[in-house]
Amino acid sequence: MKTNKKKIINDPVFGFITIQSEFIFDLIEHPYFQRLRRIKQLGLSCIVFPGANHTRFEHAVGAAYLMRSTISNLQLKDVEISEEEAEAVTAAILLHDIGHGPFSHVLEHTIVDNIPHEIVSTLLMEDLNKQFNGKLDLAIQIFKDEYPKKFLHQLVSSQLDMDRMDYLRRDSFFTGVTEGVIGSDRIIKMLNVQNDELVVEYKGIYSIEKFLIARRLMYWQVYLHKTVLSAEYLLVAVLKRAKEIVLQGQDVFASPALMIFLKNRISINHFQTNELYQGRSLLSLFAELDDDDIMSAIKQWQYHSDKVLAYLSCCLINRRLFGIKISDRPFPAKKLDTLRKKVCSHFKVEEELADYFLINDTITNSAYAGSIGKINILQKNGKVQEINEASDINLSSLSKTVRKYFICYPKELDFN
Amino acid sequence: MKTNKKKIINDPVFGFITIQSEFIFDLIEHPYFQRLRRIKQLGLSCIVFPGANHTRFEHAVGAAYLMRSTISNLQLKDVEISEEEAEAVTAAILLHDIGHGPFSHVLEHTIVDNIPHEIVSTLLMEDLNKQFNGKLDLAIQIFKDEYPKKFLHQLVSSQLDMDRMDYLRRDSFFTGVTEGVIGSDRIIKMLNVQNDELVVEYKGIYSIEKFLIARRLMYWQVYLHKTVLSAEYLLVAVLKRAKEIVLQGQDVFASPALMIFLKNRISINHFQTNELYQGRSLLSLFAELDDDDIMSAIKQWQYHSDKVLAYLSCCLINRRLFGIKISDRPFPAKKLDTLRKKVCSHFKVEEELADYFLINDTITNSAYAGSIGKINILQKNGKVQEINEASDINLSSLSKTVRKYFICYPKELDFN
Amino acid sequence: MKTNKKKIINDPVFGFITIQSEFIFDLIEHPYFQRLRRIKQLGLSCIVFPGANHTRFEHAVGAAYLMRSTISNLQLKDVEISEEEAEAVTAAILLHDIGHGPFSHVLEHTIVDNIPHEIVSTLLMEDLNKQFNGKLDLAIQIFKDEYPKKFLHQLVSSQLDMDRMDYLRRDSFFTGVTEGVIGSDRIIKMLNVQNDELVVEYKGIYSIEKFLIARRLMYWQVYLHKTVLSAEYLLVAVLKRAKEIVLQGQDVFASPALMIFLKNRISINHFQTNELYQGRSLLSLFAELDDDDIMSAIKQWQYHSDKVLAYLSCCLINRRLFGIKISDRPFPAKKLDTLRKKVCSHFKVEEELADYFLINDTITNSAYAGSIGKINILQKNGKVQEINEASDINLSSLSKTVRKYFICYPKELDFN
Amino acid sequence: MKTNKKKIINDPVFGFITIQSEFIFDLIEHPYFQRLRRIKQLGLSCIVFPGANHTRFEHAVGAAYLMRSTISNLQLKDVEISEEEAEAVTAAILLHDIGHGPFSHVLEHTIVDNIPHEIVSTLLMEDLNKQFNGKLDLAIQIFKDEYPKKFLHQLVSSQLDMDRMDYLRRDSFFTGVTEGVIGSDRIIKMLNVQNDELVVEYKGIYSIEKFLIARRLMYWQVYLHKTVLSAEYLLVAVLKRAKEIVLQGQDVFASPALMIFLKNRISINHFQTNELYQGRSLLSLFAELDDDDIMSAIKQWQYHSDKVLAYLSCCLINRRLFGIKISDRPFPAKKLDTLRKKVCSHFKVEEELADYFLINDTITNSAYAGSIGKINILQKNGKVQEINEASDINLSSLSKTVRKYFICYPKELDFN
Repeated sequence: MKTNKKKIINDPVFGFITIQSEFIFDLIEHPYFQRLRRIKQLGLSCIVFPGANHTRFEHAVGAAYLMRSTISNLQLKDVEISEEEAEAVTAAILLHDIGHGPFSHVLEHTIVDNIPHEIVSTLLMEDLNKQFNGKLDLAIQIFKDEYPKKFLHQLVSSQLDMDRMDYLRRDSFFTGVTEGVIGSDRIIKMLNVQNDELVVEYKGIYSIEKFLIARRLMYWQVYLHKTVLSAEYLLVAVLKRAKEIVLQGQDVFASPALMIFLKNRISINHFQTNELYQGRSLLSLFAELDDDDIMSAIKQWQYHSDKVLAYLSCCLINRRLFGIKISDRPFPAKKLDTLRKKVCSHFKVEEELADYFLINDTITNSAYAGSIGKINILQKNGKVQEINEASDINLSSLSKTVRKYFICYPKELDFN
Repeated sequence: MKTNKKKIINDPVFGFITIQSEFIFDLIEHPYFQRLRRIKQLGLSCIVFPGANHTRFEHAVGAAYLMRSTISNLQLKDVEISEEEAEAVTAAILLHDIGHGPFSHVLEHTIVDNIPHEIVSTLLMEDLNKQFNGKLDLAIQIFKDEYPKKFLHQLVSSQLDMDRMDYLRRDSFFTGVTEGVIGSDRIIKMLNVQNDELVVEYKGIYSIEKFLIARRLMYWQVYLHKTVLSAEYLLVAVLKRAKEIVLQGQDVFASPALMIFLKNRISINHFQTNELYQGRSLLSLFAELDDDDIMSAIKQWQYHSDKVLAYLSCCLINRRLFGIKISDRPFPAKKLDTLRKKVCSHFKVEEELADYFLINDTITNSAYAGSIGKINILQKNGKVQEINEASDINLSSLSKTVRKYFICYPKELDFN
Repeated sequence: MKTNKKKIINDPVFGFITIQSEFIFDLIEHPYFQRLRRIKQLGLSCIVFPGANHTRFEHAVGAAYLMRSTISNLQLKDVEISEEEAEAVTAAILLHDIGHGPFSHVLEHTIVDNIPHEIVSTLLMEDLNKQFNGKLDLAIQIFKDEYPKKFLHQLVSSQLDMDRMDYLRRDSFFTGVTEGVIGSDRIIKMLNVQNDELVVEYKGIYSIEKFLIARRLMYWQVYLHKTVLSAEYLLVAVLKRAKEIVLQGQDVFASPALMIFLKNRISINHFQTNELYQGRSLLSLFAELDDDDIMSAIKQWQYHSDKVLAYLSCCLINRRLFGIKISDRPFPAKKLDTLRKKVCSHFKVEEELADYFLINDTITNSAYAGSIGKINILQKNGKVQEINEASDINLSSLSKTVRKYFICYPKELDFN
Repeated sequence: MKTNKKKIINDPVFGFITIQSEFIFDLIEHPYFQRLRRIKQLGLSCIVFPGANHTRFEHAVGAAYLMRSTISNLQLKDVEISEEEAEAVTAAILLHDIGHGPFSHVLEHTIVDNIPHEIVSTLLMEDLNKQFNGKLDLAIQIFKDEYPKKFLHQLVSSQLDMDRMDYLRRDSFFTGVTEGVIGSDRIIKMLNVQNDELVVEYKGIYSIEKFLIARRLMYWQVYLHKTVLSAEYLLVAVLKRAKEIVLQGQDVFASPALMIFLKNRISINHFQTNELYQGRSLLSLFAELDDDDIMSAIKQWQYHSDKVLAYLSCCLINRRLFGIKISDRPFPAKKLDTLRKKVCSHFKVEEELADYFLINDTITNSAYAGSIGKINILQKNGKVQEINEASDINLSSLSKTVRKYFICYPKELDFN
């Protein structure tokens, strides 16, 4: 008799998750991965959905769990996957989000210059690979889609990857938007491989239709919820303003790591050469940033002498969010002009600061992004068809990108 | 202090259901309604989904519960609904299925001649109305859509009626097809009334899209599941054969009520005049039929001397179901002919009996049946638009009727 | 590439259940087992809990599923279990209830004379074993506790067997009594084997405490719910009366199989010798009885000329149940006498029939039945302790048998 | 027609929560209450249960929701509760935790001197009462148990208060410890008032037993989980050390508010007089502290020159938690002495610092704390009995306080 040595994690979404491999467990224990415990999966969405405090840590562990069951399932169907490949593809999905910073999409456009998290993920995986003496070689190949068996990459990144399988269910669970629940169990049972491509057996076609509609619903009802948008663009404004005045020479409260990112214009090159700042490498500094750095700084900025920064920070911390108007068409330049003037006079600021108070941007969404790879259905006769053709409802409208325009502004200004 | 006198029913789907009105409770206690406890909601579907043993009783109580919350919700939005109307519309939904016989859709085409359950429901409601001294007057008006406030009828019968709200959730729950779950909570919160029409507030549009897709999924995955179809058409064959030989003068085991329906050709006229058979009225005889009559008879028919009846009954009871082939096109007459001949030679039967062994029929489905009334969206500006126009995905394909052709035959005959 | 050939069953409680072995699937397909689809797990409980229509079929499949996961789990902990043993113990749990008749506990005391379903299960398993050429030898040994590895029998029948693990969860699910839910997942993860005894690892002690309390709650709140009791004892009365008058020579409506059991006094000997009745063996006749036979007969008995039988049948079918009074002490003989007289005068029956209208009996319950085997806890130091000693709350009171006395009588008689 | 103006909050535990009163909504909007969004309900438990990131905000809103249904339910039973009282008791439960600081129980024994959160809650409620011009008068009376109708206070604070009803369900939901789920729905339906005391109707007795056992399970399995304990005591050590060296004159990274609490010895008197520090009142400073201040400071402290602080901080941030040993008896002084010496030699620290590395403390728990008020059962005959007497299992052991002793120490020291 021996007591089970496997590590078990209690997951509210999937129940008991057993970590079967020691290497996977070591990756989870690494500080780079532990950091994900302090980064919320949905950033500021909790401002609308109070239960949505789940983190990227849980998501990554959940996706790895789904990967394991998918692999077992494919093996039962005689798809050849060696134990080494199984571990590698599990490691790849576990680490696929390792490069996310706090409030990732916001950060990418404020304190760093347009640095996609996928690139940072790759850099951090390569760094980990050194620390683990090359044990991540295969995982990195799969992640970069440089490994011959293409379907392994598709399990990590495609329209039906384990990332989506986990996040749609998890986000639905924690936001309480139960309508977003997808049948990940069934979809996984329906996956198969044909000509080195991930395919869905024909019986699963209705599950896929529902998956696409649920995803669309989650986008409009959660990810692009107008109050969430308003909060996120307020955060963009706060961080932009903070960086601006720091670059102008003013001091602000910030953790040392955050301060590096405020004081320096940092682009992808700096990441790739892993520049040193105050004796520490950029990657290690980045790996120290989390939600706490941002939120605890903004809380102090409420009292800053710069009135723009103070005003915006106070709005965010105390949830006095900007109003938001959404439209199918761009707002007319003339109207924006008038509004901008009103802002200036109300807040007694010069025109160049008006954009902090009158945010004007666009959002887009398409439920089925044919461009990043198709969803293929395996027909009973062994032929493969794209979902768009296989389904007898018209899904083409789902692949149409929907674009919406919006403006945000302080509620005390009534722009109607 | 007084103990709560309200009746509480434990419902696995909705939790505690409180029956607030004594009249509603009296209706539930009536033998006509108690009978629904012995009629499965999904007929033979339990042959594929072993959990699907839920009954029309539970469904009707659940629909009445949803009606009550919908009414309260509309009242909060200042839609005028009197207490009398509230009770009437609740009674109407409670009784909307009272006319269902056992294995309803099967029965309607075998032991009675094409008698829609809605007509029988009306007749039974009118009978109850006499017993309750006219207390159902208003409920019947609403049920028949003869009451001025049209939206009340829409709550009982339309694309977003409480019937669908309950059955989609309930069938999904008991079959274990979790993908069919709809957000009935949210849809109900989004309902409103505009110009005496039931409408959905614009925020609910994604929930409606998902509702339509979930309904479609339930159709193909559950209601029209091919093994379920095969079982149902086998049942049709069993009952047709039994009636045929009874009319030819043979004896079969049957409960007295069932025997009446086997011995007589019964059409809608007989129901409307409520003919007497052996001293009992047709309606009261019908109200005595339930699943047990059918199944316990068929169990005996396994041993009948008529070999067709015995064979078919044995197949059904022991779940040796016929194989089924489904196609988008009709099966060629010539092929059917050949098959029919094979059947005759294998079972050593004359050609006129071949159709008991080679079933050939069609099924159709459309998720959004625009014809029986539209789903209307209430826009922010107060205008009403049909869902098809309001949604930015193309739902028109959902209203297209999909027709499929199938044949069923004993598995020992390999027709490939 | 090959499509998964494993049979998958949709279970609302556990999700997708995969039947991995062909032999197990053949057992499920057998008519003896298919019959369980027509026998409700909780008999008449659905009269109080309308969702509780689940059948012994689902329960047996669920228990087999839990057995499979338990076995895998124990194997991970290096408990030696061969593939042959795994299949045998799974077959044993699958068939453990095969001998249940309709409304089992009622039947055992009415139409047959005190024949425990375990014995019939053994007889049917032995019959199946012949049909399957001895493939059930090992399963039967385990079932009868004649196999050397005792813990395998404990998985089939003990305080922590898979029977309980399934039925508590399943009954809780379908009745809607969510408080009865037990942590079967966790308990299974905590099981281990020490000295050929099933034990629970010390970390699982709180789960076991909760399991015992949940079981107790289910007993009092569901299994012994007073309205359920009242219905069951009414059913006892109906069947006793029917048998009585049949033995007196009267005719009643009944299926042929049921009639055999009404016309003959049948004891355990008749089962063991598998007597012939009208050319068919007793076992095969028994295997044809199900809920439908009972309920469709009783529905007809409402119109029988015997007024006792007609009255009782009508009460049961239309849910005009008897009132019930429960007490911690026996009801005084004198009071019972007076009541009996009232009954006779009200119903104008002789005294010998009074017991059909005034039911007087007892029920007992103990949550933790130390007598049928103990629950053992495996301490961190490797020692085994009984739960009673290991827990720091006093569970001894749970093993105390609680006995309650009750009388049932028609509600129109107010006995207060 | 009017659109529903009520605010709706999506709660993953209870579904849609409607905030019916504007005053309650204003309280939720207040910065004191919004702060609770940044304070985790279970502090460091997320280190073991990754889903347990839910906040005091959600808990307070959930408890207010349960209060509303309880009130409606009691009103249905003719318990007199005016609308004013209903709003007051809802406000009281909403604000009952407003005085919690980050990682509350830890904080109370480190950076402030033993200041119970209940007192701070009262002070903050009184402050809010001023801001809201006395609208909280009645709520505060109820909270302090100074209002004549005692049962209202019991709904806020007693063994069956809405605090427990919410937190047990919520913590169970987010930790994934499904066994902790309590039947709050049913318990609430069973509550009643007798002689101005909250009582449970006798039918609810099994639900109460299960509630007590579930609470006990949650304590040992979650709240006092040994790894959680180890993390919390590590946090205690970190904060103690930080305060110590700040008082010795060293500088550490900290938000301004946190720094006030590190630099000053603060006792309950300072709170009651609401002392000024750097021009800001103590209460307002306290109301600015949240989890982010603590965690972002500790992250920096990893690099502090004080090696004790740096070591402990690094252990906490990267989850290199101390090992922990639990015992029913105190650890012998002699053994502790030896261990302390080992610590000093391993870490090369003086003996006075040893307690930072060798933590020695006790925990206690009792599931049913009779002292803080009893659970009373209302018998059918109208009499009230304490649960201990009313239950036929022995619950007395549940009220026994269980005390356990533990030591924590760095895992690199093997103390066995």
